Amino acid sequence: MNIKLTICYDGTDFLGWQIQKKGRTVQEEVEKAIFSLTGERVKLVGSGRTDTGVSAMAQVANFKTESTIKPEKFSLALNTILPSDVKVLKSELVPDDFSARFSALKKTYEYKFYKSKVEIPILERFALRVNESIDVSKMQDAVEVFLGEQDFKCFLKSGSSVKNTVRTIYDAKIFEKDDCFIFSVTGNGFLYNMVRTMVGSLLLVGEGKITKETLSEIIKTGDRKRVGRTVLAKGLLLKEVVYQQNTTYCG
Amino acid sequence: MNIKLTICYDGTDFLGWQIQKKGRTVQEEVEKAIFSLTGERVKLVGSGRTDTGVSAMAQVANFKTESTIKPEKFSLALNTILPSDVKVLKSELVPDDFSARFSALKKTYEYKFYKSKVEIPILERFALRVNESIDVSKMQDAVEVFLGEQDFKCFLKSGSSVKNTVRTIYDAKIFEKDDCFIFSVTGNGFLYNMVRTMVGSLLLVGEGKITKETLSEIIKTGDRKRVGRTVLAKGLLLKEVVYQQNTTYCG
Repeated sequence: MNIKLTICYDGTDFLGWQIQKKGRTVQEEVEKAIFSLTGERVKLVGSGRTDTGVSAMAQVANFKTESTIKPEKFSLALNTILPSDVKVLKSELVPDDFSARFSALKKTYEYKFYKSKVEIPILERFALRVNESIDVSKMQDAVEVFLGEQDFKCFLKSGSSVKNTVRTIYDAKIFEKDDCFIFSVTGNGFLYNMVRTMVGSLLLVGEGKITKETLSEIIKTGDRKRVGRTVLAKGLLLKEVVYQQNTTYCG
Repeated sequence: MNIKLTICYDGTDFLGWQIQKKGRTVQEEVEKAIFSLTGERVKLVGSGRTDTGVSAMAQVANFKTESTIKPEKFSLALNTILPSDVKVLKSELVPDDFSARFSALKKTYEYKFYKSKVEIPILERFALRVNESIDVSKMQDAVEVFLGEQDFKCFLKSGSSVKNTVRTIYDAKIFEKDDCFIFSVTGNGFLYNMVRTMVGSLLLVGEGKITKETLSEIIKTGDRKRVGRTVLAKGLLLKEVVYQQNTTYCG
C-alpha cells in the first residue's frame, strides 16, 4: 500500500523536515512512529524540505507499507505515538505511483508579520516583528511583480547547484489576519529560501528603500546582490500542497 | 511617580501572574527587571491575577518609583532586560491614586477553541481542541444568558471564601478568528476560574447536553454541581483592562 499523510507541525523545536545526522527532524519523528506502529523501516517522502524553524499546516508525505492497518486509521494510530508538536491530520490510500514530491502540482506558503515598536510575546512564536513605519499598502501593491512564469535566479543562494531557476507563481497577496499581516504565495515550486527572501524584498519596498519597479527589475536582471534579506524562519508556514488526486483514492 | 505598565505575556511557561514561593511568575520577572533597572525593590500591583498557563495581550500593573527615568522610557528599558515571553507594551505616568487593581472598570477575556478530530500542533499552544460535532451556533445563541448584573455563585469554586459573587457582564460573544472560535467576555470582574467554567458550560450546550434555558436556570439557582468543567488554561487570554483614565496622564 502507498499511504499519503497530511502532517501538521510546529517547527520551533525541529531542525526542519529532512533527517539529519544530528538533531530532531519531522521526517525522523514520523518514520520512528511508523516503525513503532508497524515494525517497518520505511522511507517517508515529503513534498519538499522545510527549513529549521519553519512550520507546516499541511505538509504532505507518502510511504509504502505492507501493514494491514486500514489506510485511514494510520492517522489516529500514529498520533498516539507522535509528540505534541507533530500530528497527522489525515491518512489515505493513494495509487502506487503517487509521490508526495513529484506528484505535487502547487504549494502555498504563508509568511506572517506584525507591525509594532515592541515584541509581542503571544505573536512572536509564529510571526516576524517589523517596524511600525513600514507601508504595507506599498508591499501589497508590489506583490504582483512575482506573478507568472519567471526566472527567479535573483533568489538563488550563492553556491547553489540548482540549474533550473524558472518557477511559476500563480498567486501572491498580503492580507490582514489575527492582528498580523500574511504574505501568501502559491507556485509550482520554490527555490531554497525563496519565500523568505521574497518577504525581505517586499519589506525593502515597504520601507521605501526600493520601488515596485526596482523589484521587478531585480527579478528580470537576476541580481542576487540587490534582493532583500532572508527573514526569520519562524514566520513561515507551509500552508497547503495541491495534487491532482486531492480526494481519497478508492483502491 | 506612579507608573502604569501594559504587559503582554505568553503564559505557557509561567505559574501565573502572582509571585509564588517557588516557580516562575510574571510579577516576579517584571519586579526583577525593575530592580535591575532602578535598584528599587518595588511592589507591582496587577489588575488581577492570572492563573498558571493563562496569557495576556494587555495585563495592566502599576508601581511607585523615585527613579528619574522618563515614564514612557520604562517600556523600552525594561524590555532589554525581560525574557522573550514577557514584554512591556507601554509605560506611562498616572496619578498617585491610580491602582491597576482598584481603578479597573472592566476587563475583557478571550477563550480560543477549535473543532478538529486531531490535535493541530500550530494551534495547540493557545487554543483548546473540541469535538467536531459541537454545535457552535447553539453556543453563540446561549452566551446572552451571561449578560447583565447577576449572582454567579454557580461558578464559585467550592471552599472559596469570596463573599460577593455578584458581577456584571457587559458583553459576551463567540466569533470566528484565524481558524478558531473566540469566546469574548467583558465584565466588571470575574470569579476565580469563572471564564473557563463559562466555556465548559457553553460546551455542554454545544454538545446538546443542556439547553440555553437550563444554563440560565443553573445560573439563577446557583447550582455549582451542574455547571460545565473548567477548561484548560492555555486557551485563555486577558485581552484588555479598561480604566477611566485610558489616555496618557499629562503630569
